[in-house]
Amino acid sequence: MSENELLRTVCAQNKRLAELGLVILTEGNVSQRQDSVMAIKPSGIPYNRLTSDSIVIVGIASGHILISEFSRAPSVDTPIHLEIYRRFPEVGGIAHTHSPYATAFAQAGQPIPCCGTTHADAFFGEVPVTRILTEQEVEGDYERNIGVLIASMLKPDAIPAILMNGHGPFTVGKTAQEAVDNALILEKVAMLALVGLQPLYLPSYLQKKHFLRKHGQAASYGQL
Amino acid sequence: MSENELLRTVCAQNKRLAELGLVILTEGNVSQRQDSVMAIKPSGIPYNRLTSDSIVIVGIASGHILISEFSRAPSVDTPIHLEIYRRFPEVGGIAHTHSPYATAFAQAGQPIPCCGTTHADAFFGEVPVTRILTEQEVEGDYERNIGVLIASMLKPDAIPAILMNGHGPFTVGKTAQEAVDNALILEKVAMLALVGLQPLYLPSYLQKKHFLRKHGQAASYGQL
Amino acid sequence: MSENELLRTVCAQNKRLAELGLVILTEGNVSQRQDSVMAIKPSGIPYNRLTSDSIVIVGIASGHILISEFSRAPSVDTPIHLEIYRRFPEVGGIAHTHSPYATAFAQAGQPIPCCGTTHADAFFGEVPVTRILTEQEVEGDYERNIGVLIASMLKPDAIPAILMNGHGPFTVGKTAQEAVDNALILEKVAMLALVGLQPLYLPSYLQKKHFLRKHGQAASYGQL
Amino acid sequence: MSENELLRTVCAQNKRLAELGLVILTEGNVSQRQDSVMAIKPSGIPYNRLTSDSIVIVGIASGHILISEFSRAPSVDTPIHLEIYRRFPEVGGIAHTHSPYATAFAQAGQPIPCCGTTHADAFFGEVPVTRILTEQEVEGDYERNIGVLIASMLKPDAIPAILMNGHGPFTVGKTAQEAVDNALILEKVAMLALVGLQPLYLPSYLQKKHFLRKHGQAASYGQL
Repeated sequence: MSENELLRTVCAQNKRLAELGLVILTEGNVSQRQDSVMAIKPSGIPYNRLTSDSIVIVGIASGHILISEFSRAPSVDTPIHLEIYRRFPEVGGIAHTHSPYATAFAQAGQPIPCCGTTHADAFFGEVPVTRILTEQEVEGDYERNIGVLIASMLKPDAIPAILMNGHGPFTVGKTAQEAVDNALILEKVAMLALVGLQPLYLPSYLQKKHFLRKHGQAASYGQL
Repeated sequence: MSENELLRTVCAQNKRLAELGLVILTEGNVSQRQDSVMAIKPSGIPYNRLTSDSIVIVGIASGHILISEFSRAPSVDTPIHLEIYRRFPEVGGIAHTHSPYATAFAQAGQPIPCCGTTHADAFFGEVPVTRILTEQEVEGDYERNIGVLIASMLKPDAIPAILMNGHGPFTVGKTAQEAVDNALILEKVAMLALVGLQPLYLPSYLQKKHFLRKHGQAASYGQL
Repeated sequence: MSENELLRTVCAQNKRLAELGLVILTEGNVSQRQDSVMAIKPSGIPYNRLTSDSIVIVGIASGHILISEFSRAPSVDTPIHLEIYRRFPEVGGIAHTHSPYATAFAQAGQPIPCCGTTHADAFFGEVPVTRILTEQEVEGDYERNIGVLIASMLKPDAIPAILMNGHGPFTVGKTAQEAVDNALILEKVAMLALVGLQPLYLPSYLQKKHFLRKHGQAASYGQL
Repeated sequence: MSENELLRTVCAQNKRLAELGLVILTEGNVSQRQDSVMAIKPSGIPYNRLTSDSIVIVGIASGHILISEFSRAPSVDTPIHLEIYRRFPEVGGIAHTHSPYATAFAQAGQPIPCCGTTHADAFFGEVPVTRILTEQEVEGDYERNIGVLIASMLKPDAIPAILMNGHGPFTVGKTAQEAVDNALILEKVAMLALVGLQPLYLPSYLQKKHFLRKHGQAASYGQL
């Protein structure tokens, strides 16, 4: 993928967050990794004014801004993305939203239990919620501390999502598009788990069946 | 209906699932029967990329793929559709969604009670929920076992819908369009039954009146 | 207004019900009075296929179909509309929807209390719910009996809305457009009254202030 | 900004209220200050019929209508806007909506607690709700009394929003656009605080961190 294609892809997937109702105004951000760099949303630009040339390219090891055509500052959440990319070579895209139902779980400090096959198709077991940061961690290198905490709990191949306590969801994927897909699925399963009826938790054999029908060597879902 | 018209119809009704908000990404599927075959959504293709020539034609008796222009695999739920068509000659279309409120009932393992005339206009009595499959049934021929279970409970002329426990709704109709219409009505009556007030169950004489105003020999609703 | 304008107006206001999300498929209907006749939606035609020339004109006194270009049968709810027009000369339009939150109140057999100024701006006091019809009334002239019951409770100048028990809302206005506006406001105030917090009932002096700010001789809202 | 630009801006931000689903029909209003005047929505005109030349310009000190091309009366809430502009020179725009979740809090007479960083990014602490007006205040100069009460509680730099008890939210900003942005954020945080889970209140050190990350001298969010 050329640099221009990377910028266009990341711009499009950021705009898709707003189109899907997962964010409003300037909330949230999407990035995609390409070799040793990542491309990410600039800070504080509303989605309806976002263009490819405002996307910022940052070195993953150094954390330095490499390309920013209009000298845009990257998302304040950049250190979170960097920590995840550094820890997980298999992660190619990251999405962060404030989608309402997943955020409601994050605000309640509760994981999202697996209540049905819609959840089991995408996430193998409950979606975890982090502890809340200490005052020391908040006053220190706040965004980096969030990244370290998320990276310490994330299992990209089994549950490509984490709820940041009091804040909202982060999802990952092989690409930015897959990370945004996972953000959309996460919002739906959070909504389903909340919708006024006491759900039965899905038996573990059914959770396993559905996850493995879509993921791994023996998957039967989708096209070869 | 020509083969091309069948493919176009099934493609359009699949896309309609997403347009109506009953599915996201690649969830769900719609099929329509034509003589001894059915046309169904390919597996794992998102609705916004679906085209008529990606629809797959499968023999109902044999379960064999007869036509698949781009060698697409059919929906993993194909054996469920086949079991329903084999058992009910009067069924011409089937829709499967993960629509939020109907899925919430399925996830809670609860039938949808008849709480008002909106329900009684379409479904004669409560919409049943299946039992959950045993581990043996899940590890065996999973999708076919779902189909057998649904077919054993379905009454297409009275209640053209079943909730698969822990999973979501299946609806049927004389055509794919009618099956999708029923999926939309089912979602609405599930929402109405959940919406925060304790509903009164509709008296049986009113349930009967509304269902028979729209269905059967003495129906007075609609055009002759 | 010419006959063609009447047909176009009634067609447009029926389509508006679906555009506003107050109905799906073929649910609901809107009519407007013109002198001694009313124009109303045909029975069982989905909103996306509705055209002006499918609207049916019915004599209010006689209940006879006067004009139906394609020999469409009028809405099965026609006798309800007729009873309301016969009783209230000041009513010029009627809307019937199955809008979710107002229908949830109807299904619970509960009136919508006045919980805020949004309600008081449009409805002077709680929106009443009818009793449920007896089996005899249902087996007899069902739709006419609904119309008689609604007409016996309706106060168009103070509360232009009634919830039919177990069924859904009917609203009225000086025109079809005003009746549809009232159906939209009713849905919103029903939603507000249900949304998870225990509302305080608005003091009667505030109810009166807001209603009279918008209605009657001393209204200060809107343009002269 | 020329007078024409002011009228176009205020018209566009009023229409945006409806596009964002924060109001229906003729509910709500937006104004913007320019020097010694403000431009505001005319009373009772639905958003889909609003044009720039129907916006009304009112003197802030005098309360007199200065420009109204079609002799439109300004919003009945004009005295509320005037009281806020008179008290707070730093306020440049005001939005009033009946957005559902924020209005549900207003109708319950409850402030919106800070349950997460989405709230803390925009509002420093709980969003207050006013007392309900006395009968004397309602029968007297009603709208002006609302304005005085709101102005006595508002802290534009820390919490640019107030819930009017029994009525709905008012938000402010440096411009009309910022006031509408705040109305949208307020609706989202109200929804998040209500969505069926018992939220944990965000620790004060996190509230402070997030608010100061976006506001004030040391803000790190957005572009310089």
